[in-house]
Amino acid sequence: MAKRLFCSFPHLRIREVVPFISPLVPIYFTMLAVFMILLIASLQGTAQQESSFPYQVPLDPQGSVQMSWNVSYPEKVIYFQILIKDLKFGLIFGMSDRGEFAGADLAVLWSDAHHSYFADAWSDQQGRLHLDSQQDYELLKARQSPEGLYLLFKRPFITCDPRDYTIEDGTVHVIYALLEKPYSVLSAIDVFTIQNRGLQRVQLLKPDIPIAQLPRDVINLDVRAPDVLIPAQETTYWCYITELPKDFPKHHIVMYEPVITKGHEAIVHHIEVFQCDVGYQTIPRYSGPCDSKMKPQRLNSCRHVLAAWAMGAKPFYYPEDAGLAFGGPDSSRFLRLEVHYHNPLQLKGLRDSSGIRLHYTPSLRKYDAGIMEVGLVYSPVMAIPPGQTDFSLTGYCTDKCTYTALPPNGINIFASQLHTHLAGTVVSTVLAREGREIEVVNIDNHYSTHFQEIRMLKKMVRVLPGDVLITSCKFNTQDRSKVTVGGFSITDEMCVNYMHYYPRTDLEVCKSIMDPDYLQKYFHMVNRFNSDEICTCAEKAVTEQFNEVPWNSFSGGVLKSLYDFAPISMHCNRSSAVRFPGEWEKQPLPEVKEKRTAPETDCQPRKDSKSKGPTLVRI
Amino acid sequence: MAKRLFCSFPHLRIREVVPFISPLVPIYFTMLAVFMILLIASLQGTAQQESSFPYQVPLDPQGSVQMSWNVSYPEKVIYFQILIKDLKFGLIFGMSDRGEFAGADLAVLWSDAHHSYFADAWSDQQGRLHLDSQQDYELLKARQSPEGLYLLFKRPFITCDPRDYTIEDGTVHVIYALLEKPYSVLSAIDVFTIQNRGLQRVQLLKPDIPIAQLPRDVINLDVRAPDVLIPAQETTYWCYITELPKDFPKHHIVMYEPVITKGHEAIVHHIEVFQCDVGYQTIPRYSGPCDSKMKPQRLNSCRHVLAAWAMGAKPFYYPEDAGLAFGGPDSSRFLRLEVHYHNPLQLKGLRDSSGIRLHYTPSLRKYDAGIMEVGLVYSPVMAIPPGQTDFSLTGYCTDKCTYTALPPNGINIFASQLHTHLAGTVVSTVLAREGREIEVVNIDNHYSTHFQEIRMLKKMVRVLPGDVLITSCKFNTQDRSKVTVGGFSITDEMCVNYMHYYPRTDLEVCKSIMDPDYLQKYFHMVNRFNSDEICTCAEKAVTEQFNEVPWNSFSGGVLKSLYDFAPISMHCNRSSAVRFPGEWEKQPLPEVKEKRTAPETDCQPRKDSKSKGPTLVRI
Repeated sequence: MAKRLFCSFPHLRIREVVPFISPLVPIYFTMLAVFMILLIASLQGTAQQESSFPYQVPLDPQGSVQMSWNVSYPEKVIYFQILIKDLKFGLIFGMSDRGEFAGADLAVLWSDAHHSYFADAWSDQQGRLHLDSQQDYELLKARQSPEGLYLLFKRPFITCDPRDYTIEDGTVHVIYALLEKPYSVLSAIDVFTIQNRGLQRVQLLKPDIPIAQLPRDVINLDVRAPDVLIPAQETTYWCYITELPKDFPKHHIVMYEPVITKGHEAIVHHIEVFQCDVGYQTIPRYSGPCDSKMKPQRLNSCRHVLAAWAMGAKPFYYPEDAGLAFGGPDSSRFLRLEVHYHNPLQLKGLRDSSGIRLHYTPSLRKYDAGIMEVGLVYSPVMAIPPGQTDFSLTGYCTDKCTYTALPPNGINIFASQLHTHLAGTVVSTVLAREGREIEVVNIDNHYSTHFQEIRMLKKMVRVLPGDVLITSCKFNTQDRSKVTVGGFSITDEMCVNYMHYYPRTDLEVCKSIMDPDYLQKYFHMVNRFNSDEICTCAEKAVTEQFNEVPWNSFSGGVLKSLYDFAPISMHCNRSSAVRFPGEWEKQPLPEVKEKRTAPETDCQPRKDSKSKGPTLVRI
Repeated sequence: MAKRLFCSFPHLRIREVVPFISPLVPIYFTMLAVFMILLIASLQGTAQQESSFPYQVPLDPQGSVQMSWNVSYPEKVIYFQILIKDLKFGLIFGMSDRGEFAGADLAVLWSDAHHSYFADAWSDQQGRLHLDSQQDYELLKARQSPEGLYLLFKRPFITCDPRDYTIEDGTVHVIYALLEKPYSVLSAIDVFTIQNRGLQRVQLLKPDIPIAQLPRDVINLDVRAPDVLIPAQETTYWCYITELPKDFPKHHIVMYEPVITKGHEAIVHHIEVFQCDVGYQTIPRYSGPCDSKMKPQRLNSCRHVLAAWAMGAKPFYYPEDAGLAFGGPDSSRFLRLEVHYHNPLQLKGLRDSSGIRLHYTPSLRKYDAGIMEVGLVYSPVMAIPPGQTDFSLTGYCTDKCTYTALPPNGINIFASQLHTHLAGTVVSTVLAREGREIEVVNIDNHYSTHFQEIRMLKKMVRVLPGDVLITSCKFNTQDRSKVTVGGFSITDEMCVNYMHYYPRTDLEVCKSIMDPDYLQKYFHMVNRFNSDEICTCAEKAVTEQFNEVPWNSFSGGVLKSLYDFAPISMHCNRSSAVRFPGEWEKQPLPEVKEKRTAPETDCQPRKDSKSKGPTLVRI
């Protein structure tokens, strides 16, 4: 067994970091910066102490690699602190589009059994590591402590290196790999051969917004399933029904936060609390897996999101003018807790009581907050052909609907939860006014169905009567051989955004689908095109018709063109699930004359190239 | 009148260049590099003398701004030398996608009436200038001379600044503007308000290939129209017929070069020499505008390119093993010269005798060179809907045709002339072998019909029997309200590549079109979709049918999907215009399993940020 080099000098606490020029680095670099002293920049402001990394997630299922971070918006830089509890020969840390290890942007700490090095690197399609021509992960400190090795480094959101990942709003797929043997040079590392590696999804760019003060009379309620025996399987969704006291009056939820059983931080992946339908007088008690056949049917009515938390998320605060109504005659007394346990090591015997702590007040705030769903109607009319890498579907909340249903001063969207099923990869909602896209409500370019958070917006978005909300999703069906239709099943698809806003209005759903008559024209056309017989399949269900389409680049391309062209049917619905009065069928697609321009990717020119090669790390 | 500041110190020859930090530059930069001395890097190797800029074009119609340049492939840098004959208050020089002044990448020399400055800048959509955050145009020398001011600067092909233009193979649209008043700061310049400005198209990245030695017995022949009175109009194509002596035996052309009448360097835009059809015993003499009604019809048969030159091009050398056959019984004695005069100032009374000097030898080289046309058949079946910004059409030279017609050792392509009409913006030919795109034959991402050169390839491309050549063109029809069909007219479109190769084979044309039956299915489909009546328009000509299509995103999208899917009809033709034997109808589209990956845009990290703001220039 190779000895653990990093642990052999536990008494040496803080050492200097000097840049090291590997003999493999072109001579050109060597001449430029031979063994210059790298000044360790002291972390700015609050970032100096470990306690000043406000966000934290474990990267691995054991929680032996902890990532903490802080965001400096003025500098456009993220400060990372990685705690490696049991370091052997190094750590690969990085980011990639969807968590791939090929083509990833990496910060690497490795040992050649004599010295340790740190470098900004990238992996090629074969998993081989290469030094970046520009070093953008900048090591600030490496410190041995009783808990393990602390690595502190920073990275700009955007670098000018085309090999680098651009850190954007929304989900970031963070990857890690633990090196278990020495490597003489960086390029000797083949990341695919490393056993101990994985990914963690996280929102790195947390919004930098002021938090409303909690009222003095705030009360809290823990919604937790007591003493759940976590099944020894990778994925469990645990369902638990609890209830409010009878005649519990209306309150405002003003904040909620996770309550995680100690030691389970790496296993409790996300938690949601749903309210049941107000129509049911009673809901049966239940505590068990959500997909169990023993689960009472009536629990399916408990689908109104009250609170949602996912790994890495901080407490959720409502804006100071608004609270989420809870209690009283208009809402159900029954709450469904859903906890997603992610237990890939199939650990046995763990008992968990994680949940969500709701903070609420009887002193109602000025406004009720509401949740409005925009995007696509759940319908098989909206389908994705098989074998697609980025098929887009778009749902509209039209000017006619916002004009009909919103108050004159409009509404303020302060948070948003994007939602698709398994095939969704990119989700966005954009606000258009008078034919011009003027503002992004929420966008996630690396969306995963496995990481759904209610995200506070960096800036509230005001939606006025007459505005249009355009929700688009990209889907990847490369590995599917059959069509994917819209619907409720996890293998069907959705494309929606649950927008949290105030003041609450009666508009609960503002979604669209393509006019179904146009879909019949499509089936006709494709059938005629592929054979000269006239097909008479219009009597079948849409899903069956879709299943009979011979999928190829033509039938797929025509469907895409049709979705971008055909008129729509609008669901502009009250909370009672009844449409607002008006003509909602065969509506024209909202015309967008001016598309949103892509945000400026303003590269941060390297002020001074501190280091051109790996940095020698003395721990 | 403002005095001409730059000319006021003609006796001062060479002065130092020091970086200057404008008070408008953020304080941050100022602190970094206050008034450091910029060392003027001496130009490397041969680039030191003005004479060592081998390529030269005038930028303006008067020739008062001359651009010379040299390419350093090892450094991936272009050295520019600009001679400004009559400088007033500065010069804007730059590059942009298609010669636009908005969103352009600029090097600016300007004066505030006291001092002169040089900076790397960009223009926004309103034409306002801004300093680049990264200074990539690097001033090397500013020198006053009796001819005018010489500015020497360099620019990497690729910078890491997202505002910057990437210098690629193919056409570059170079723009210039002459400042006629002082500007206190860079940001005071609005490029749209400047009168004296324009664009010049040029291939900057000339291939760096060895030139074959000319044989001792080389003879030359000038093909020139004597004493043409250039019409006082912006555009003239002048046609002139000349002939070889009777019984002129077969020779090999081994080189040709332009012969430009002195002083007309800025007016003679391009020159081509065509051979007439061997079928005609005689061709009438003519010297006059090509579009004149007086031009004899028979001249239209003179369309086999023998030589082509465009502004900025150097002499064209054949590879040492090959020459272009010329003379003898297999080729016409008659040659047509075509000279494009670009005279936007409508200068009168200019007499011109420009043309091309052919260098040929009676000692035949080992191989005859040939010209093969690949891409799309000229046919209305291939059409571009109106209002498109980048509609692609693709023509194939299939494996079946190359297998049938090429010799076992294949052919070597050494030069290529891309060709479309007015709407073409991007043209490329890619070589695929066994379903994988393996090599680019030629690509121009900024193609213009107004700048067609025969370009030497950087590296010869070997095409073997069974290989596939994929020629794609992007078209812009944004300003057109009617469909654009394939055809011979300048308002119709083409998408072809004339590939120069050896050894010559009998394959002269290897092009495709979509199977016309599929186009009839398309018309049927679109007509049915738009009305429920069944259309019976199949008897009409294709162009008429296209004109009846209601163009919208659906009919356009379906056509695009069809072109990417439907089988093709191949023209795999001998020089006699007869097809090779074989089945060429309803052939499957070549399958490409592996697409060419985009070339690495390896940013050149700035070794040392010499200058963060404008440079003070002392002339």
